[in-house]
Amino acid sequence: MFAPVYFDHNATTPIDPSVLEAMAPWLSARFGNPSSRHEYGRAARRAVDDARGIVAAAVGAQPSEIIFTSGGSEANNLFIKGAAERMKPGLIAVSAVEHPCVLRPAEQLARRGWALEKLAVDADGCIDYDAYFEVAEKKPAIVSVMAANNETGVLQDIPALAARARGALFHTDAVQILGKLPIDFRALNAVGVNAMTLSAHKLGGPKGAAALVVDKRVWLEPLIAGGGHEKGLRAGTENVAAIVGFGACCELAVCARAENAEKMLELRCALERGLIELGARIFGLDAERLPNTVSFAVPNVEGETLVSKLDRAGYAVSSGSACSGENPEPSHVLLAMGVAPIEARGAVRVSFGASNTFAEVQGFLNALREALSDLMKLTAVAASR
Amino acid sequence: MFAPVYFDHNATTPIDPSVLEAMAPWLSARFGNPSSRHEYGRAARRAVDDARGIVAAAVGAQPSEIIFTSGGSEANNLFIKGAAERMKPGLIAVSAVEHPCVLRPAEQLARRGWALEKLAVDADGCIDYDAYFEVAEKKPAIVSVMAANNETGVLQDIPALAARARGALFHTDAVQILGKLPIDFRALNAVGVNAMTLSAHKLGGPKGAAALVVDKRVWLEPLIAGGGHEKGLRAGTENVAAIVGFGACCELAVCARAENAEKMLELRCALERGLIELGARIFGLDAERLPNTVSFAVPNVEGETLVSKLDRAGYAVSSGSACSGENPEPSHVLLAMGVAPIEARGAVRVSFGASNTFAEVQGFLNALREALSDLMKLTAVAASR
Repeated sequence: MFAPVYFDHNATTPIDPSVLEAMAPWLSARFGNPSSRHEYGRAARRAVDDARGIVAAAVGAQPSEIIFTSGGSEANNLFIKGAAERMKPGLIAVSAVEHPCVLRPAEQLARRGWALEKLAVDADGCIDYDAYFEVAEKKPAIVSVMAANNETGVLQDIPALAARARGALFHTDAVQILGKLPIDFRALNAVGVNAMTLSAHKLGGPKGAAALVVDKRVWLEPLIAGGGHEKGLRAGTENVAAIVGFGACCELAVCARAENAEKMLELRCALERGLIELGARIFGLDAERLPNTVSFAVPNVEGETLVSKLDRAGYAVSSGSACSGENPEPSHVLLAMGVAPIEARGAVRVSFGASNTFAEVQGFLNALREALSDLMKLTAVAASR
Repeated sequence: MFAPVYFDHNATTPIDPSVLEAMAPWLSARFGNPSSRHEYGRAARRAVDDARGIVAAAVGAQPSEIIFTSGGSEANNLFIKGAAERMKPGLIAVSAVEHPCVLRPAEQLARRGWALEKLAVDADGCIDYDAYFEVAEKKPAIVSVMAANNETGVLQDIPALAARARGALFHTDAVQILGKLPIDFRALNAVGVNAMTLSAHKLGGPKGAAALVVDKRVWLEPLIAGGGHEKGLRAGTENVAAIVGFGACCELAVCARAENAEKMLELRCALERGLIELGARIFGLDAERLPNTVSFAVPNVEGETLVSKLDRAGYAVSSGSACSGENPEPSHVLLAMGVAPIEARGAVRVSFGASNTFAEVQGFLNALREALSDLMKLTAVAASR
């Protein structure tokens, strides 16, 4: 099988072989339903509980604060709609650069009588503090701001924002930061963060396991109501193998995080130097960003066209975000940063994993140079006709 | 590893080895996000689309009628809350013997201004038609009745019920019937069934994949809102490997269903003869039931006690339902059938898979006889003190 170089780790990651090994028994002989009282069930229950402990420890939370879900989108919807369901309609504030799985549920609340404020960001993609403080004065009931943006990698100062949230329930989508930079729920909770979202498949774990980490004082209505699973907050037979894999990838991430982050940052710097030489603009260049993420555009070149040429050259990258399904519109994240629509359409995202190499980055820059040169020739031919 | 005989297939099933084989590439080299436009993503998209076609074909539906979810509980919640969200509050009617993941969302609607009717069943667990027609006269907006009960295996006559639902949106939880008896969505749709729920892990597929099959004319609000996945009705990165496994187990089920059903029915009959000899009462004995399911109680014997003794003797069975998490209450299904609480506490469920054998049934009956004899000795000792 032809295996292109994979530079799209913010979309999803390969399962680490050791994670798959940990999952394997739960996909075969140890197949029980954790709610069953016999030996098959009890073994599955222990596996889920062990994974809960590992995930909690990886992010400085208590096991009882972990609600396993099927994915980050579900966890974000659970928090936003589950918290709102227990309140009278009020104000919800979410950043303008959130993932659609925060924006859409917030918009659903807006159709049920809530007021919705989208928090503005500056040209670097960071929350505009003046605008934020103005919104905070209106005493929002719920605030959700992501820890790291999936498209640009731009980080938000979550403790500073939570501390000024004026009694709101404060949630952060931490899906993209987990495994790349340290994140500690206890410390965040101390400054006013009530909940955060994690997902396994962004850090070498399987698709199908994620978590809402939530302060026990927050009263949530279940999104998936039914059995008593997850303390009544998330019904459904637990996806045992995926949850075990979630634990295993968190364990790996804790051990390797600092080293991986350093390595990916070196790759990022090398890539950025090359991109700037090629005349590209890097989005969020002056902001604190994830060590693995670069979003860029080359003037007058469509992102889709580049992604497709790079794919054929053996490099898997993304145009804007790949997480939100078919979407031909320019990125709402870049538009919120004040990027012109025509330039936003040029966006290409590279997101590294720890196994990527300098040689791959060099190869990518060469392929990009060739792609651009091809495109310029085409433009020249078209112009001469 | 000690491997007890597994008689709890209504709780969950082992993944069929051929299903796991089909899943394997999607857990390793073919790890892409189906929303990515590069080769990894396109391969994953094709796999999801192929599985959609297979699942649809297995139940006589169109691929475009399949919404993949993380589990049956999510699919049931999606239908009930997703349909209700698009309507003015009205009447919702669900059978009294539904799984909690239908009952609880219906109760959530009742707290949001909906009227809720729980449809009564007779002593055999079948919907009481007189009571049903009375409720139907009130023109419910939503009706949900399961095709086969998870605890007793009792079947409902879904076409007859749907035909009399008087314009309600009619949904059936078909999780337990899939793979055991024929089910055809096109035929059901023609008589008024608008949606049905399926799940992979009850028929040799993995946990983490399920579907709501839904008539395109039904207007649903997404439960998990966000990206454009599943035509905007279910956000979140698709669990590709689990979805591929769902397709594979449906394909298997189509080929082997009739033969497996016949075999399981023979096992069921043998078990029932033995149970009646031992003085047990079989719940729903006179009703049409799934070929694999027997729910019984031995007078004056706690179900939990029996399950635990049988577990130690090497037989994995369930007390009532294992699907709904920790729940020490007597089964709501049996109570709805008019079984006295003390007798309902005696319930034990055996649910076969196609790989079970007559020898296992014989061994189980012997183990049960010994367990009962032990318990009688204990009772005699206690009485003589």
